[in-house]
Amino acid sequence: MNLIEALNWRYATKRMTGEKIDESLVNEIIEAVRLAPTSAGLQPFHIIKISNSEIKKKLQPIAFGQPQIVESSHLLVFASWDKINDEQIDTVYNYTNNERGVPNSATADTVSGLKQLFSTFSTEEQYHHTAKQAHIGLGVAIVAAAELGVDATPMEGFHKADIDEFLKLREKGLRSVVLLALGRRKTDEDWLFPLKKVRQPTEQFVTEIR
Amino acid sequence: MNLIEALNWRYATKRMTGEKIDESLVNEIIEAVRLAPTSAGLQPFHIIKISNSEIKKKLQPIAFGQPQIVESSHLLVFASWDKINDEQIDTVYNYTNNERGVPNSATADTVSGLKQLFSTFSTEEQYHHTAKQAHIGLGVAIVAAAELGVDATPMEGFHKADIDEFLKLREKGLRSVVLLALGRRKTDEDWLFPLKKVRQPTEQFVTEIR
Repeated sequence: MNLIEALNWRYATKRMTGEKIDESLVNEIIEAVRLAPTSAGLQPFHIIKISNSEIKKKLQPIAFGQPQIVESSHLLVFASWDKINDEQIDTVYNYTNNERGVPNSATADTVSGLKQLFSTFSTEEQYHHTAKQAHIGLGVAIVAAAELGVDATPMEGFHKADIDEFLKLREKGLRSVVLLALGRRKTDEDWLFPLKKVRQPTEQFVTEIR
Repeated sequence: MNLIEALNWRYATKRMTGEKIDESLVNEIIEAVRLAPTSAGLQPFHIIKISNSEIKKKLQPIAFGQPQIVESSHLLVFASWDKINDEQIDTVYNYTNNERGVPNSATADTVSGLKQLFSTFSTEEQYHHTAKQAHIGLGVAIVAAAELGVDATPMEGFHKADIDEFLKLREKGLRSVVLLALGRRKTDEDWLFPLKKVRQPTEQFVTEIR
């Protein structure tokens, strides 16, 4: 199955069977997300990988009772930095430079430019920026899952503050962004399964400047 | 090359050869983006596909003079809706329902819920929401390019308002979000090419709740 076939095969599965997905497949999806690029290489987000049934049951009402929460094999919570401060930027660049055997002086201008840039953002804008980076990871996860034949349902409809509190995310400097339920489609009970995938026609989606 | 190999092969190419990428490959990358899922299926973003050298030359100073702008084969501008209003939501749902042969009454509750939800967002928050959806598309494009062996450099560092004005995006209800340069790496002149790809270790990137 090539990429386009995989993307046509996938859909936002509304009902799942509860079947366990092989751990190695879930880890491959997460590895793809870990390798995703992010703005300035900051990787300002984190994945919470939940397979515990009791925890998923407690999360379900916070996510408007959506059945995929409990019917999924694994629920991934994408959570991003609640702010971007100098210390975090230093930590990333110190680590990266060390791994590359490059002196910190080589990235001093970049680092000071980033600190200057983000100091002009409000805390809320900093969070929107980190959440956007998490969405790059979400896009990568969706392709990875589709290519591995794993159903994946992204969900933005949930009470963010409640999930933050339940998972104690703010204490870790994180805020929830989006959920991704991984599992197996239960086609006979899923209203969305028989419906056509609809997207904007290409000529409307793309403007070409030759 | 499987997905993980492709993601390890790719990097944010800083210098490109100027070689033309086969149009069918570029179109396949864009088709993958078109198939990307978005929150509530709104697809609130648009791609501007630029291969014109003169236009790329004019865009380069707006993007801090980055060489990939002119050395790329194609430059994709991801631009998202500058706001989300009732009319746009109706347009998407009317079209989708029509394509599916479903009456609009079937989605009436969803549509009114979305209108209600987005009416509580400021215009700026609406734009952040649409820009996040564009970042899902960016993640998909990056995987698609890597799997097709096409170099792709995402760029968030540019003067957004200037690109909006130059491409007359606001008149189309759009704002620029991110650029993606597609081309071929020029390894002997690219400082980043020989450096190790560095990401957070998995045990730091992921929290597991079993």
